[in-house]
Amino acid sequence: MSENYLILKGDICYTPSPEKMVCMEDGYLVCENGICKYVTKELPGKLLDFPISDYSGKLIMPGLIDLHVHAPQYSFRGLGMDMELLEWLNCRTFPEERNYQDETYAKRAYEIFAEDLRRGPNTRACVFGTLHVAGTLILMDELEKSGICAFVGKVNMDRNSPDFLREQSADESLANTKEWLRQVKKKEYHSVKPMLTPRFIPSCTDALMEGLKQIQAEWRLPVQSHLSENQGEISWVKELSPQSAFYGDAYDRFGLFGGDVPTVMAHCVWSEEEEQKRMKERGIYIAHCPQSNENLASGIAPVRAYLEQGMHVGLGSDVAGGAHMSIFRAMADAVQMSKIRWRLVDQSQKPLTVPEVFYLGTKGGGSFFGKVGSFESGYELDAVIIDDSIYRHPQKLSVEERAERLIYLHDGSTVLHKFVAGKQLF
Amino acid sequence: MSENYLILKGDICYTPSPEKMVCMEDGYLVCENGICKYVTKELPGKLLDFPISDYSGKLIMPGLIDLHVHAPQYSFRGLGMDMELLEWLNCRTFPEERNYQDETYAKRAYEIFAEDLRRGPNTRACVFGTLHVAGTLILMDELEKSGICAFVGKVNMDRNSPDFLREQSADESLANTKEWLRQVKKKEYHSVKPMLTPRFIPSCTDALMEGLKQIQAEWRLPVQSHLSENQGEISWVKELSPQSAFYGDAYDRFGLFGGDVPTVMAHCVWSEEEEQKRMKERGIYIAHCPQSNENLASGIAPVRAYLEQGMHVGLGSDVAGGAHMSIFRAMADAVQMSKIRWRLVDQSQKPLTVPEVFYLGTKGGGSFFGKVGSFESGYELDAVIIDDSIYRHPQKLSVEERAERLIYLHDGSTVLHKFVAGKQLF
Repeated sequence: MSENYLILKGDICYTPSPEKMVCMEDGYLVCENGICKYVTKELPGKLLDFPISDYSGKLIMPGLIDLHVHAPQYSFRGLGMDMELLEWLNCRTFPEERNYQDETYAKRAYEIFAEDLRRGPNTRACVFGTLHVAGTLILMDELEKSGICAFVGKVNMDRNSPDFLREQSADESLANTKEWLRQVKKKEYHSVKPMLTPRFIPSCTDALMEGLKQIQAEWRLPVQSHLSENQGEISWVKELSPQSAFYGDAYDRFGLFGGDVPTVMAHCVWSEEEEQKRMKERGIYIAHCPQSNENLASGIAPVRAYLEQGMHVGLGSDVAGGAHMSIFRAMADAVQMSKIRWRLVDQSQKPLTVPEVFYLGTKGGGSFFGKVGSFESGYELDAVIIDDSIYRHPQKLSVEERAERLIYLHDGSTVLHKFVAGKQLF
Repeated sequence: MSENYLILKGDICYTPSPEKMVCMEDGYLVCENGICKYVTKELPGKLLDFPISDYSGKLIMPGLIDLHVHAPQYSFRGLGMDMELLEWLNCRTFPEERNYQDETYAKRAYEIFAEDLRRGPNTRACVFGTLHVAGTLILMDELEKSGICAFVGKVNMDRNSPDFLREQSADESLANTKEWLRQVKKKEYHSVKPMLTPRFIPSCTDALMEGLKQIQAEWRLPVQSHLSENQGEISWVKELSPQSAFYGDAYDRFGLFGGDVPTVMAHCVWSEEEEQKRMKERGIYIAHCPQSNENLASGIAPVRAYLEQGMHVGLGSDVAGGAHMSIFRAMADAVQMSKIRWRLVDQSQKPLTVPEVFYLGTKGGGSFFGKVGSFESGYELDAVIIDDSIYRHPQKLSVEERAERLIYLHDGSTVLHKFVAGKQLF
């Protein structure tokens, strides 16, 4: 039946593996019931009369995946970049996150976040809210309206944060979390789902972590948090959790570190060997956030080593550690940072290539959401149609060259159409 | 006389020194005969009836200064970023530059370059052309039409380059240069001026350098070239010029290294102490090109040390080593790279601040052009009027915060009006 089919025509580009970028000029992406069937240069006869969405001359790429973004921080992206992590949290982040206890402010700010996310090239995201139940529900409402697929977390934090942004006990934090989950259930969201979100070890008492473990067991939720971002943070975790063998072990003690629990850990800049080993065993998803790691002077994660070990790696904007929500920018930043790492730190680790970062920003992170981030058979249709003709060029370029150039030049103004989970948003 | 006056009203921001960003909401910038007189919160009585260009709510900033850009490389910005300098020159740059012997191609490509430069936030630039006389004149014609103030160089290169992009002898290169200068003189350009441009030591024989010294003495031209960008390049210069004490000395031997000769040297990533000392003595302008130094895996220049020694430093896009022509992007890159340098290389050198990079991208580089890059009394009026309202924010921001945010977020689409050397371009 033609109505079950969606056929997109244009210049197609995707990465089935980190080594291989498939590019096809004037190709067709054939989908049935929102699922990719195949990419072809010539339509088979039986499809010739089916309606075609003709994007000739435009790039058709998988939607981009942001494995780590703080929605309430979008409002101060590009501001206050003169500090390291712990000072930045206290001076910039926490005071701003406090504003989200005001539902009017939360609505105003999250509307901007969701609308900008919708207009940009990302189609899925793992999103931190704040500790506020009502505010986080507003965020989820706005994301649901936007059509973006997202895991969203009400943040848990019951220690080492200012009075104005701290749950006063583990019990309070856990009760809030359960209340939030009950409300989420009632809302019957379609594209937005809850995710457990202990902020990071320094913000969460053992009692809170223990309670979250039980909530996880009951609700079967995925988990997101931060790991080994900054050296000061790591030393602090050592003090706070002396019984842990390494930072990640402090999550693992409470069963919140992969295994049966789908888990995203942001950063992993300074993960030592033992931590890397555990991450690999547990199938942890690493959200590599290169721009944030520059802005907060954290360092440069050894992404090449993670890839070589066959670990799960995707990209994160980490707004507002990063100033840019587009994962195209994260791709370019990842290449650039890997070059600086190669030059200044370790010449045995070759810089990342364009196909590799394209993979990280699509299929690499996408697999956290299922069969997402590629145009291979069986993948959900997440796609962006991009007009790159604004980047004028005196000669004709290949699709591969246009894709590479787009990673560097994309400025958020050129997404013409967008499909998420088989549905066209615009 | 009111017709000699130009009064701009809006949210004004400039940096008289690296330490100080002056910000004034709803201020007036008063200019007479194209020269800034003062910035004021209240207009004096005698000016109250004068016409005012009202840009209320918009940012008014000095035009940005690009101390190092390769016009023929603009066509492949964001492409071929998988190599280091010397390989990249051979595989990407030289084959593209060859195209500019075709005047039709040169015209098509330089039109794009000049139009994009005109529309962006930069108002002045030091520009490399190619070795082609006709092509470089086309570039100068296009820049003159654009209204941008530029020093432009026909490139000299008579060794270590492929046959298709090399002048066959020093004599040929010098004859071409003289012919180019005669043509330039005839053209009577208004805002575009010639600049001697030996590509870099590996491309120029001693005979060529000796001849350029004589041309410099006769024509009193400023000079631009490359210095200590890449470690492989530096070793090569040591081999090629064993009599030189250091890379910069290879220019200095021919009197093409500052002193009475206004000189811009791009990169200076790996300048050793002796080279730094000579650069300071000779008043060399350092064009710091942070993004290029990432893309070509060159390293991170010690800009803080240069500033502390009171050396002249400005910013360069180094298109196409850098993919972005906007010097706002170079400002953000400079901050980010300085943080990575602090983290990974030298914690005694504090990261650059936003006022510092704003200074580098305006007055720091601007002083190469005279009293340019600030709104202080006596400065030529170079200004851009920027609508930053597209970066929506849930709360009101100060002018200083808006300026900081713009450095990170500017995507080239928001320059509403532009003034160069007292004249309004649009």
